[in-house]
Amino acid sequence: MTHSPVRIAIFGYGNIGRAIEQAILTANDMTLIGIFHHDQMEQLIQKQPDVVLLGVPSRQVSDAVEQLLRQGLLTVDSFDIHTKIPEVHRRLDRTAQEHQAVSILSAGWDPGSDSMVRALMQALMPQGITYTNFGPGRSMGHTVAARSIEGVRDALSMTIPLGTGIHRRMVYIELKEGYNFDEVKDRILHDDYFCHDETHVVQVPDVQALNNVAHGVHLIRQGVSGTTHNQEIELNMRINNPALTGQIMVACARAAMRMKARKQFGCYTMIELAPIDLLDGEREQLIAQLV
Amino acid sequence: MTHSPVRIAIFGYGNIGRAIEQAILTANDMTLIGIFHHDQMEQLIQKQPDVVLLGVPSRQVSDAVEQLLRQGLLTVDSFDIHTKIPEVHRRLDRTAQEHQAVSILSAGWDPGSDSMVRALMQALMPQGITYTNFGPGRSMGHTVAARSIEGVRDALSMTIPLGTGIHRRMVYIELKEGYNFDEVKDRILHDDYFCHDETHVVQVPDVQALNNVAHGVHLIRQGVSGTTHNQEIELNMRINNPALTGQIMVACARAAMRMKARKQFGCYTMIELAPIDLLDGEREQLIAQLV
Repeated sequence: MTHSPVRIAIFGYGNIGRAIEQAILTANDMTLIGIFHHDQMEQLIQKQPDVVLLGVPSRQVSDAVEQLLRQGLLTVDSFDIHTKIPEVHRRLDRTAQEHQAVSILSAGWDPGSDSMVRALMQALMPQGITYTNFGPGRSMGHTVAARSIEGVRDALSMTIPLGTGIHRRMVYIELKEGYNFDEVKDRILHDDYFCHDETHVVQVPDVQALNNVAHGVHLIRQGVSGTTHNQEIELNMRINNPALTGQIMVACARAAMRMKARKQFGCYTMIELAPIDLLDGEREQLIAQLV
Repeated sequence: MTHSPVRIAIFGYGNIGRAIEQAILTANDMTLIGIFHHDQMEQLIQKQPDVVLLGVPSRQVSDAVEQLLRQGLLTVDSFDIHTKIPEVHRRLDRTAQEHQAVSILSAGWDPGSDSMVRALMQALMPQGITYTNFGPGRSMGHTVAARSIEGVRDALSMTIPLGTGIHRRMVYIELKEGYNFDEVKDRILHDDYFCHDETHVVQVPDVQALNNVAHGVHLIRQGVSGTTHNQEIELNMRINNPALTGQIMVACARAAMRMKARKQFGCYTMIELAPIDLLDGEREQLIAQLV
């Protein structure tokens, strides 16, 4: 059985937008109908894509998605402000249902595929503790926070996993001329982004020379299945961060199309998606291959 | 919001049946209404449980599930003959849809939660190779095969992972009186269950003294996200085998109830389930906690 390819538009074209583009070009069941910058919403809507993949910053996601859903378009975003996900989910769920659309919220690896694994781990061992250990890898949020500190010309904040969900921050900075390193370092250490974690500030001549999009995660849960203790499960990943995020968003576009075909309108996070819906292929063939 | 507990019946009461029982007793949203042996199908049906969890051997699963689905009852089984899953799935899917019921097929860790992880890994890295490495742990199928060999009083076949999906079989046997070890060993090595793998046969005085329900798996995929190679993800698990199987079946009973409430009638393998449906709790709370 052949289907006509899913018509995808990309909205926002930074690191993630480019990664989405590469993932679409390798997908046999999709075709890219256009890339639109954040000021080209009207042009995008006129194209009537099947699914819009958003590569805009998280704080712009919910308004843009809302606007697209009102046009009945399907959306996938990688909104990553963990604490605001429930509120954004509620808002977009209402709009998606009203307009018989589907929106996949927070598609990426964390939040995203890690969330699916955390949910699965909890199902396997309902009693227990899950630790999410990030890195080593660049934290975009902490990097932006460090760059905004007075006296910093450029910065890179690396997240180093210390186990049990505890992280060290390694902050590499270039100093602006006329500033004193110890004073700038002190401002970083007292900033709200850094004061709760073990943080080391290191002065370097060229921050860009340190840059690397590698990232990783180690998820581990020790718990109880039924009445049996000492059950253990862990997941390890070492990846190119934007490439994986773009790939996952493309997989979620597939899931959005399938939910729409089943009239399951609404806004969904990845823990609400069945893994099979992320994959290209026919149901029976995927069951035979993967189960 | 409080719901009345899901009324569960257990059909078949061996290792898995007992593990299911323990998992139900620790679940706040379920109540066990009865345990039925394989000759008590009529009594079971009279009790009209919400979901029947089957602890019968795999070869008895499809007929028993078929019978229960025809009564409109929901079912969860741990059918584990990988090669026959597509055929059983097709048959039970038809019956479940006809009778507006839901059946979860092959609920366990492999097939089961491992299948979900394999599907997820493939979504993250569509091009690449996944290896499933089992053990160390007892293989029930190989143990039964070894026990049936002439001259064997009792046997235990352990699966040892050698990496890249290749396994060693360590077969511990008690010899029947009057048999020659080298001849029996030769019969095992030439048996169809063992002749394709590296197999070692060891004579022991007491097989039961070696028994242990611990098992494990190492799933690993190296692949490509978009156009980016060298992406790597792995899952490790060390578990009590029946305890985990029972726990997963109970989680799948929850998913069956939710699929029924959404009128998604049919037979599903675990790759067709959303992880959130496996968990006790309200949607918004689970999203806030796990995404």
